[in-house]
Amino acid sequence: MERPESFWAWGYEDRQLDDERRKQIAEHLPMVLGFTASDLLPLPELDEVEVPASRLEVPSALADLITTAREPRIRRTYGRAYRDIVRGFRKDFAAAPDAVATPKSEEDVVRILEHCSSQDIAVVPYGGGTSVVGGVECRRDRGPVLSLDVGGLSAVRWIDTRAGGHFATLYTHIDDLVASTTTVTPSGTIATRTLPGSGAGPSPDRMILGSEGTLGVITEAVVRVRPRPSHRARATVHFAKFFDAVHAARDLAQSDLHPSNCRILDEREAALNGVTLDGSAVLIVAFESDDHPLDAWLDRAIEIVEGRGGRVQDKSASDGASTWKAAFVDAPYLQSALVSMGVLVDTFETACTWSAFEALHAAVVHDVRDAMKRVAGLGRLTCRFTHVYPDGPAPYYTFVCPAKVGGELEQWAEIKAAASEALLANGATITHHHAVGRTHRPWYARQVPTLWQEAIAAVKAKWDPAGVMNPGVLVER
Amino acid sequence: MERPESFWAWGYEDRQLDDERRKQIAEHLPMVLGFTASDLLPLPELDEVEVPASRLEVPSALADLITTAREPRIRRTYGRAYRDIVRGFRKDFAAAPDAVATPKSEEDVVRILEHCSSQDIAVVPYGGGTSVVGGVECRRDRGPVLSLDVGGLSAVRWIDTRAGGHFATLYTHIDDLVASTTTVTPSGTIATRTLPGSGAGPSPDRMILGSEGTLGVITEAVVRVRPRPSHRARATVHFAKFFDAVHAARDLAQSDLHPSNCRILDEREAALNGVTLDGSAVLIVAFESDDHPLDAWLDRAIEIVEGRGGRVQDKSASDGASTWKAAFVDAPYLQSALVSMGVLVDTFETACTWSAFEALHAAVVHDVRDAMKRVAGLGRLTCRFTHVYPDGPAPYYTFVCPAKVGGELEQWAEIKAAASEALLANGATITHHHAVGRTHRPWYARQVPTLWQEAIAAVKAKWDPAGVMNPGVLVER
Repeated sequence: MERPESFWAWGYEDRQLDDERRKQIAEHLPMVLGFTASDLLPLPELDEVEVPASRLEVPSALADLITTAREPRIRRTYGRAYRDIVRGFRKDFAAAPDAVATPKSEEDVVRILEHCSSQDIAVVPYGGGTSVVGGVECRRDRGPVLSLDVGGLSAVRWIDTRAGGHFATLYTHIDDLVASTTTVTPSGTIATRTLPGSGAGPSPDRMILGSEGTLGVITEAVVRVRPRPSHRARATVHFAKFFDAVHAARDLAQSDLHPSNCRILDEREAALNGVTLDGSAVLIVAFESDDHPLDAWLDRAIEIVEGRGGRVQDKSASDGASTWKAAFVDAPYLQSALVSMGVLVDTFETACTWSAFEALHAAVVHDVRDAMKRVAGLGRLTCRFTHVYPDGPAPYYTFVCPAKVGGELEQWAEIKAAASEALLANGATITHHHAVGRTHRPWYARQVPTLWQEAIAAVKAKWDPAGVMNPGVLVER
Repeated sequence: MERPESFWAWGYEDRQLDDERRKQIAEHLPMVLGFTASDLLPLPELDEVEVPASRLEVPSALADLITTAREPRIRRTYGRAYRDIVRGFRKDFAAAPDAVATPKSEEDVVRILEHCSSQDIAVVPYGGGTSVVGGVECRRDRGPVLSLDVGGLSAVRWIDTRAGGHFATLYTHIDDLVASTTTVTPSGTIATRTLPGSGAGPSPDRMILGSEGTLGVITEAVVRVRPRPSHRARATVHFAKFFDAVHAARDLAQSDLHPSNCRILDEREAALNGVTLDGSAVLIVAFESDDHPLDAWLDRAIEIVEGRGGRVQDKSASDGASTWKAAFVDAPYLQSALVSMGVLVDTFETACTWSAFEALHAAVVHDVRDAMKRVAGLGRLTCRFTHVYPDGPAPYYTFVCPAKVGGELEQWAEIKAAASEALLANGATITHHHAVGRTHRPWYARQVPTLWQEAIAAVKAKWDPAGVMNPGVLVER
């Protein structure tokens, strides 16, 4: 039997923190965050949840692919944003889709899209369901909505040439790792050619990647993979000042050493995670390779960070991936536990040039703290870098403040707006976990040139003439 | 005074090889290429050239920006493809544009496009004029044509963060080096945000780069630059077999060593260039950095190539760039000299996956030699790799055979078609010097999904409703 995933929070149902563990955390809250926990909310149960009646009849020809049953609809209602978890605790699943489709093949997707396009049923593609930007949340006011779960298409078709990877530098974007795609649109299927590179016109893959389900459903992708690394090297480095760590990260990003990991935690983030308690900022730099030992790479990286005043705390031939991975996987369970005790906690990401970062950071710190003060009396903002590029960092912020039970979404909206305005005004980009979704659409519309939005709409009108594909994401119509 | 560029061939007028030098080359032709030179054609003179009368009147408001004078029109008639040079020798400039615009600012470009769009005048953007794919050649049958020379927009506006470079691996595409663009279209101006990376929707820059003037004119671009390298290292490696060199290049491309140069010459290419005369294939691998010495990088690269049977001929802390650069700059003068003595010589490029390369190479060698035999009785085909990616190489072929004076373009068209069909049938991409132009449109139309061509047409209809931008490139209309 499959291990059941939570229907309302990150992760597995049986891994949610129980009452006893949550009480322990609540007791430490004043010391760690400076405010008191509210009464623990009970974890929601599936049978307590209410969903609106389905507005769809499934034609008999599609009965094996589409269901209007209650539980599948509940499970595809939300992503995993703070807003989603809050509504989960409220047992509010008013945004549930009217039906859920579970195709097992490209041909199934074609049949489903033909049906929805002809019947004007909105289609919301659903992958892992981990959107933090309202990407899988239906707009029921447009009419009937079908959630199209592509989980049944997950399979490895073939493995050929190795290449690529997921790194904090260099190959950071899925765009760079996808060699070709097969996409089903309501107007037909687009299959691109698998090439290491091509200068033949604008890249169709680059239009499809990032379209967030508004143009079609990717049913197949050729992805560059690489062998598991056999060599690793890493160092943890402390800095008295955050901006010394920033300068060191910039030097590393421009060194052509291409570390696989190059992250910064500011002093608050480091303290909150118990990594340092002396006010140091922390930089982690790591290398991996399946081809060669990495001594020369790490030695030079250490010279660079020491040149910026860094103090190397440890240095090893392991990248510490297992410890980091365990903490990374556990963090979301802590988030839902914190929400249950009245903590408003969320994160946002961006990217900007190195020369824009100082002003951007000052504005974000000022404006988000100010918003938290207004809506919650106090709050804490921390910063890390998740990726660094030769021309700029990808800063990632966490904000934490006391929630007003029943008013969390309004509090959150005011803080989120303050953050987004600060990003927009300072030349940064607006996404969260690499997507725009419905949440960021107002700021996206201001970030991106109007003629480009019209161009996306023109492509959409060609591929999705009924406008049924994920309405409300990227394009307004 | 500016040094005058040739109006019909690559490079400067005063660097074209004179009669004496061309006679020396002609004498060696039988030994080097296996056939005899024809009588030397005289180098064309500007005053002998005929152009059709201009069909345009310049409105007085634009008289400072647009001219219908003879010489500027001749100088923007062709790119620098084999076909262009042949027509230069024939003094055939029947494809001349009706007028030439020389804007000095973005505002000038706006005014010119407004005029052309309202008057249905085709606009052919003209940069360096080095297109080898008919990218700047007007389609006079559509109606009046204006060549828009953006040379007057060349200036460095500002320099900020360093990043990027032009390499044989890693950053090979201009797409990766452009952080943002400003593009004037007949419908308005699109200015994108300068960001190190963004997941906010499909990238507008990726639609504009590679659009080859069909959507608008790029008037400004933020380009990632990097400091001049202070460390260099290189090795030249000989291989008894071409495919051993191919395997070594593949290993290097997948090693994460990211050499700045990683090129192969097959045994024929090496012999033709006088690099080896013993039938060896040659691999050149080089590294450069402004951050660190490269001993560890080169040592590992040498281990890799020796593991594939390579014999290191020289190894040094210089990348030999100046010698290579001189030869690279001189080669085009040799091409026009060869054309003048009845040699049909041209090149074509492609890219494919490593697993597709062996079959592709066999097909190209067979089909192109076969075509040369049909149209010229004999011919020579050589191969090099100009770039290598983790998932495939970018092979670059040169073909040489005797030209029939007066029938060169028909001979060329048959060889080119054979090559292009072989590329298409074997999963490779169709470009030359990273563009499609008019020359490759029939094969491009077969390589790229129909829905993607319709999408480009939809964007064009939005940005260029009169369809005046570089008609005949990418999009048929």
